[in-house]
Amino acid sequence: MTTTAAAPTTVRSSYDELLRRSKEATILGSACSVLHWDKETYMPPAGGENRAEQLTLLAGIIHDRCVDPAWGELLAKCEASELVKDKSSTEAVNIRELRRMYDRETKLPKRLVEEFVRTSSLSQEAWVTARKESDFSKFQPWLEKLIKLSREKADCWGYEKNPYDALLDEFEPYETCENVTRIFDGLQGELVPIIERIAGAPKRPDKSILTRAYPIEKQQAFCRKAAEAIGFDFQSGRIDTVVHPFCSGMGPGDTRITTRYNERFLNEAFFGTMHETGHALYDMGLPREHYGTPMGSSVSLGIHESQSRMWENFVGRSPAFWRFFLPEAAKAFPEALSGARSEAFLHAVNTVEPSYIRVEADEATYNLHIVLRFELEQAMLSGKLGVKDLPAAWNKRFKELLGIAVPDDRRGCLQDVHWSFGHIGYFATYTLGNLYAAQFYAQAKKDVPGLEDSFAKGDFTPLLGWLRKNIHGQGMRLRAGELIRAVTGRPLSHADLVSHLKAKFEPMYGL
Amino acid sequence: MTTTAAAPTTVRSSYDELLRRSKEATILGSACSVLHWDKETYMPPAGGENRAEQLTLLAGIIHDRCVDPAWGELLAKCEASELVKDKSSTEAVNIRELRRMYDRETKLPKRLVEEFVRTSSLSQEAWVTARKESDFSKFQPWLEKLIKLSREKADCWGYEKNPYDALLDEFEPYETCENVTRIFDGLQGELVPIIERIAGAPKRPDKSILTRAYPIEKQQAFCRKAAEAIGFDFQSGRIDTVVHPFCSGMGPGDTRITTRYNERFLNEAFFGTMHETGHALYDMGLPREHYGTPMGSSVSLGIHESQSRMWENFVGRSPAFWRFFLPEAAKAFPEALSGARSEAFLHAVNTVEPSYIRVEADEATYNLHIVLRFELEQAMLSGKLGVKDLPAAWNKRFKELLGIAVPDDRRGCLQDVHWSFGHIGYFATYTLGNLYAAQFYAQAKKDVPGLEDSFAKGDFTPLLGWLRKNIHGQGMRLRAGELIRAVTGRPLSHADLVSHLKAKFEPMYGL
Repeated sequence: MTTTAAAPTTVRSSYDELLRRSKEATILGSACSVLHWDKETYMPPAGGENRAEQLTLLAGIIHDRCVDPAWGELLAKCEASELVKDKSSTEAVNIRELRRMYDRETKLPKRLVEEFVRTSSLSQEAWVTARKESDFSKFQPWLEKLIKLSREKADCWGYEKNPYDALLDEFEPYETCENVTRIFDGLQGELVPIIERIAGAPKRPDKSILTRAYPIEKQQAFCRKAAEAIGFDFQSGRIDTVVHPFCSGMGPGDTRITTRYNERFLNEAFFGTMHETGHALYDMGLPREHYGTPMGSSVSLGIHESQSRMWENFVGRSPAFWRFFLPEAAKAFPEALSGARSEAFLHAVNTVEPSYIRVEADEATYNLHIVLRFELEQAMLSGKLGVKDLPAAWNKRFKELLGIAVPDDRRGCLQDVHWSFGHIGYFATYTLGNLYAAQFYAQAKKDVPGLEDSFAKGDFTPLLGWLRKNIHGQGMRLRAGELIRAVTGRPLSHADLVSHLKAKFEPMYGL
Repeated sequence: MTTTAAAPTTVRSSYDELLRRSKEATILGSACSVLHWDKETYMPPAGGENRAEQLTLLAGIIHDRCVDPAWGELLAKCEASELVKDKSSTEAVNIRELRRMYDRETKLPKRLVEEFVRTSSLSQEAWVTARKESDFSKFQPWLEKLIKLSREKADCWGYEKNPYDALLDEFEPYETCENVTRIFDGLQGELVPIIERIAGAPKRPDKSILTRAYPIEKQQAFCRKAAEAIGFDFQSGRIDTVVHPFCSGMGPGDTRITTRYNERFLNEAFFGTMHETGHALYDMGLPREHYGTPMGSSVSLGIHESQSRMWENFVGRSPAFWRFFLPEAAKAFPEALSGARSEAFLHAVNTVEPSYIRVEADEATYNLHIVLRFELEQAMLSGKLGVKDLPAAWNKRFKELLGIAVPDDRRGCLQDVHWSFGHIGYFATYTLGNLYAAQFYAQAKKDVPGLEDSFAKGDFTPLLGWLRKNIHGQGMRLRAGELIRAVTGRPLSHADLVSHLKAKFEPMYGL
């Protein structure tokens, strides 16, 4: 029940009331984020059912508030005013995005919102079991239900050509399946020959250096050190251990990342932490004074992912980064790394080769994992692919794209948590993120002389400062496509990622 | 916004709708419990402000739902029906307690509810700092505000003689200050001579056995073992480490306890864990089929505390318990306990002597700590004692009651978290809990032959079964005063606690 003392009379008071409502919805959403975070980190196994009820009830409350016709009246008043004259003003941006949100939310019946939240909360537990036992049949009925509910959502939201557009738009606003397909096709065309050339390259990395003894406590300290070095503020955040790492921005002063450790493999926790810290730095850098409004929010998941991938790959796998961090790592892991040659180590962390698990994939093959998911979820949504046939379709296409045979569903179609959350239309944002990252990073190097020299000194503030100014601090002022043009002068393309991969891997592999 | 398809027409459908609303309010409350738990355990330091906003907003939403006039109409319909004919039926109990809740909630303006939650959420952080620095001035303005808001609450709720009654009633329904004073006076009259005699007793414990090396990891495992042995279900709960231990029942399948460790003092974590596990066993034993309604809820804080104190003291400090657990402890802490004589150990964990910190006090002097707080909060509420004069009043009265001089406010009036939460009228329930525990336990020993023999075998199911049947499984069927009569045949008195203390301490101290 949203109570308002009196209907606002002036445009300014209407706008203020709109923001007040937006802030309240955001704060309620942030409470849900805490519940989600807890579900993944510390909730006892038997607590899942009650948690699903909590999340469902809160989703219904947020929905009720966001479809209140008062929103529509307030928006109409603001839209007819001077406030929207300058399209890039704070007011105009907030009004634009709140309109978008209101229009989308009002198209969904509450029943569907609640059913989606309850189903996805419970289905995630079914997925955990199915994955553990590598038994797709335990997840299949849940995925069928989620595909059906997603299709219902798409139909409610409406679309011009493709129901997938309506879902993609939730994660990557203003993006279309057609445009993503075009970009992905271009990327794939260049990527496959690069991967093939690397597969036959004369110089090979020795990965064994990464699978030596890396005691977990030392990894924790080392990951923490790296996160802090690149700018993570532990007064306003924390790192926990989970099975499926993620970052959760829960509002000002509270951004949490998670990771997982493998004592015989450094990459998992280390690059995972770099990745999630990249997300966290975006959340921590959003303009606090605009908290709870679009101007204090991130642009899209693709832009968000560009931040995580930039810190994970463009920074974290760079020679400059390890000039500073390898001596630190050797101190932390003397048994594994004392006397390690930096060139060998760098090549090991930059090994390119087909593998089963997306989150462990290298910078090049990673994007083929995304192409696979992007194709399959479109096929499931349109009904061309029955959910029961997913494992076979996955394995067949995986072999075509990556050239290796999937040994079991745990390392195949059950590996990712996303579909169990009902996140259909999400995966594409990962490769979009890689592309945005490459294009932003190329620009940052132009704008900031000596950028990578600073990494070698353990100083990451020049890059963070550039990101704060150009991306984090802008909130949703620009749409993703506008932002990339404004910052780099060009629309998004695969060119910079391809250049980056070639420049990095060709000399490394002796090509 | 609570939506109902259509106004219920039959009595049964009105009752069902009432329960539906009660369940939803409970689920929302349980979401707040997660937020509170997280605040105490894992929230980053800078997250406090946003957390206060989350809690405030949710409190307002719950309040709005609970004062919806539809409740009143549904209640009136049920109250005029056959459903309330049998006063102890599930329906009559639910209607009785929901009426009580509705009447109390509707007396509070939303502004006060929200201000109270926001203030207490923020004031708790001020208290943490004040306590750490032993600087009362940093907490004083917050306590002043909370006393003022508490007084406002009492005035809204109304009372016959004493505004304190209105506050006490929130934590210990149907109890009055007059009755508590009468019981406490009786107890104090018997307690003081016992404590004095013990102070001059010929046999003295050697406490040094408890302050040897108790490695924290070993304590964690040992505490976990004990909690599991007495019935804590780790599928439905967990133990975390905090500065100020508590138990939080977050709904079915999710009951969490917290404790703190001191590597040179076994008692803190061990008896703390036994205490919180006692609370948890009550929550875990509530009838799940009645979750979200009074029949699935605990009776009062006094009855809740009777469960924690029973497991902490009546079980956890008993000779039978340690017949089983001392050999286990000696295995866990060989450095501290190998070759420890059981009589000496038992006397050490049953040391009676005045001390500063309530939660570390022994079974006898503990109640004087409560008398002190019970007196002081009444005085602050009535205005007889200004908040600024609290430290001096505390120290003076502490000396009178316990005979020792308080060294600083950290170990004086700043030691407890409760007042920072705005919990005025809460402390009395602790000594009520001791009294209820003694009386219940005496009855359990009568009802279950060989009760303590089972402890010596590490079997606690006979006691847990008795508690499940007589207390946990009953929900709110009976009011606290009715429950103690129904189970023990007598109203609450100090007799059984005094008998227990004498029977235990006289031989131990050679009196």
